[in-house]
Amino acid sequence: MKLAVVGGGQLGRMLAQAALPLGIKTQFLDPSEQSCAQDAGALICDAYDSAEGIEKLLQGSDVVTFEFENVPPSTVATLAQSKPAFPPASALSTARDRWIEKSLFQQLTIPTPRCAKIDNQADLDQAVIDLGCPAVLKTRTLGYDGKGQKVLRQASDADNAYAELGSVPLIMESFIDFEYEVSCIGVRDQAGQCVFYPLIRNEHRQGILYRSQPIADPVLQAQAESIVESMLVELNYVGTLAFEFFVKDNQLIANEIAPRVHNSGHWTIEGAQCSQFENHVRAVVGLPLGSCEVRGEVAMYNVIGRQPDVKALLAIAGVHLHDYGKSERAARKIAHITVTAQAAHQLEERCQQVEALLVNDLG
Amino acid sequence: MKLAVVGGGQLGRMLAQAALPLGIKTQFLDPSEQSCAQDAGALICDAYDSAEGIEKLLQGSDVVTFEFENVPPSTVATLAQSKPAFPPASALSTARDRWIEKSLFQQLTIPTPRCAKIDNQADLDQAVIDLGCPAVLKTRTLGYDGKGQKVLRQASDADNAYAELGSVPLIMESFIDFEYEVSCIGVRDQAGQCVFYPLIRNEHRQGILYRSQPIADPVLQAQAESIVESMLVELNYVGTLAFEFFVKDNQLIANEIAPRVHNSGHWTIEGAQCSQFENHVRAVVGLPLGSCEVRGEVAMYNVIGRQPDVKALLAIAGVHLHDYGKSERAARKIAHITVTAQAAHQLEERCQQVEALLVNDLG
Repeated sequence: MKLAVVGGGQLGRMLAQAALPLGIKTQFLDPSEQSCAQDAGALICDAYDSAEGIEKLLQGSDVVTFEFENVPPSTVATLAQSKPAFPPASALSTARDRWIEKSLFQQLTIPTPRCAKIDNQADLDQAVIDLGCPAVLKTRTLGYDGKGQKVLRQASDADNAYAELGSVPLIMESFIDFEYEVSCIGVRDQAGQCVFYPLIRNEHRQGILYRSQPIADPVLQAQAESIVESMLVELNYVGTLAFEFFVKDNQLIANEIAPRVHNSGHWTIEGAQCSQFENHVRAVVGLPLGSCEVRGEVAMYNVIGRQPDVKALLAIAGVHLHDYGKSERAARKIAHITVTAQAAHQLEERCQQVEALLVNDLG
Repeated sequence: MKLAVVGGGQLGRMLAQAALPLGIKTQFLDPSEQSCAQDAGALICDAYDSAEGIEKLLQGSDVVTFEFENVPPSTVATLAQSKPAFPPASALSTARDRWIEKSLFQQLTIPTPRCAKIDNQADLDQAVIDLGCPAVLKTRTLGYDGKGQKVLRQASDADNAYAELGSVPLIMESFIDFEYEVSCIGVRDQAGQCVFYPLIRNEHRQGILYRSQPIADPVLQAQAESIVESMLVELNYVGTLAFEFFVKDNQLIANEIAPRVHNSGHWTIEGAQCSQFENHVRAVVGLPLGSCEVRGEVAMYNVIGRQPDVKALLAIAGVHLHDYGKSERAARKIAHITVTAQAAHQLEERCQQVEALLVNDLG
């Protein structure tokens, strides 16, 4: 069995690492020669829309998936004509455009910030009147890690902001004065069975995920599973999907979805019975899903821009390093660290030791 | 950082899988084009004693190790002239010859069955008189999974047995009427620090390991750690070493050592904080060792000769499949299954479900 993955970053690398023990080999299509996934599978180095690259990727592959949402949906649609491809291209089209995504949230009556579609400065000026400030202006496509965003604290911040963000289609969203952020990772198999990991509390630094930890909150968990399941069913989804929420007054407010394995779920490799990566692979190749049960206490940190002292890090018990084999560069996710422990206080101690060693360069 | 491994079987494959998250790439030297390790790293397909193969393996490698003990010690000695190589070639020479191995046990006052060196039929006839029967006759080198062995239940079984086992150097050992078998896996780093996994109880079928499970037995654990540490120090060992024992009357009786990661330790991937594979890699590249603490309840089964129904298998919660990507063949280890659970009764239930699905072909 061979899995084809569009995209060759660390998510692809970890998908391949999860696939191999199931007897599944992986090959990737990615335009970068430095794609870090190539250490875990075969790299076809070509543009995402190259007919030749797509043809090579299909050769010998049994099933196709993608590892990030900025892949052209036309590529996935082309691949889907020849081989089973999951998640569906429609999920990709939804997730890569914030306006389509938010419209679907509203259609499914999923609570989400008020928002407006911005195609020029006049739309923006009107939206500032309609929604008021504070608000967040975001590019509709291709944004990630806080890139392509501007916070509008007051009406005057909107002056010329359309041009400032590149004169591309934008969305303006009412600013939510949230208490914290969570994500819910769900997986749906080809028979329509769904499983959900526990809610994950996420902490960002300069728009980049810094720390993730699963939490036990039965009220929010029930809300989240209901919302995520409605989305998985609506999209006729197969694979792992991440749903990000703001939490305010014990309510979830939908922020965005990612139709793929997600950074906030990296702790599942050591911290859950079956990881988000293995469950994605199981779903797309047609195997039954694994248990999302948490194993002990666990938290995850991103290593951003600069490597810490690895010897010191690995001397801490319960620390698991995942080095992506990427060179150091400001604001770049180059590794993550999962910290495990049997008891909460032990986890906290180990996390403090890890935090003291992190030398993240956020740029 | 690049790790060179002599041998390209499933042990090499799992070493490479453990190395990659540490940012370490692996390459293998193995004469077989079908080497299953090549899915996890680069394969140099050449004889173990090929000067060209050894040269290629050294290129770009930072450190050398081996994944099984039937590698020619001369190959490891040659490699060690150019690059750091662990474990030392002397450990290999000791472990691959049962007479040298048993002599070292005696030198270190480690309890072991009485034994005799057999170089011809006359030696064997004398040994039958000296040691008596029952006894086990084994080839001194190249035996594994019960191959190259003959049980002598009575003196007449020794008739012509020297020729029967190939007229090669043999060892005769008094038969131990043991209660059960255990192994102790220890790891020693370059600074001389040692860590030990809990004792593992092993069950064999037709001489092939069938099931392994860590046990908590403080008395035997203390005996085992003392014995294994004396061996690690004596050999100036770096890396993972497995020590197999018979248990009788609450005493350990040394059977044999394997200077490498070991089948009975495969459960450590999911069942211990840091696996035997990761700890071997950490030791040989000069990183601090990880914790051997057990995570919950765990047991391992070998998949021998024939694959079970994988869909049914993966539908059992807590089941982790490790398919080595090898074709089916009687008596061949083609995969292993680790079963995890939070409670002992839950583990037992899951193990029963797994056992019902195994269709092992022992040949």
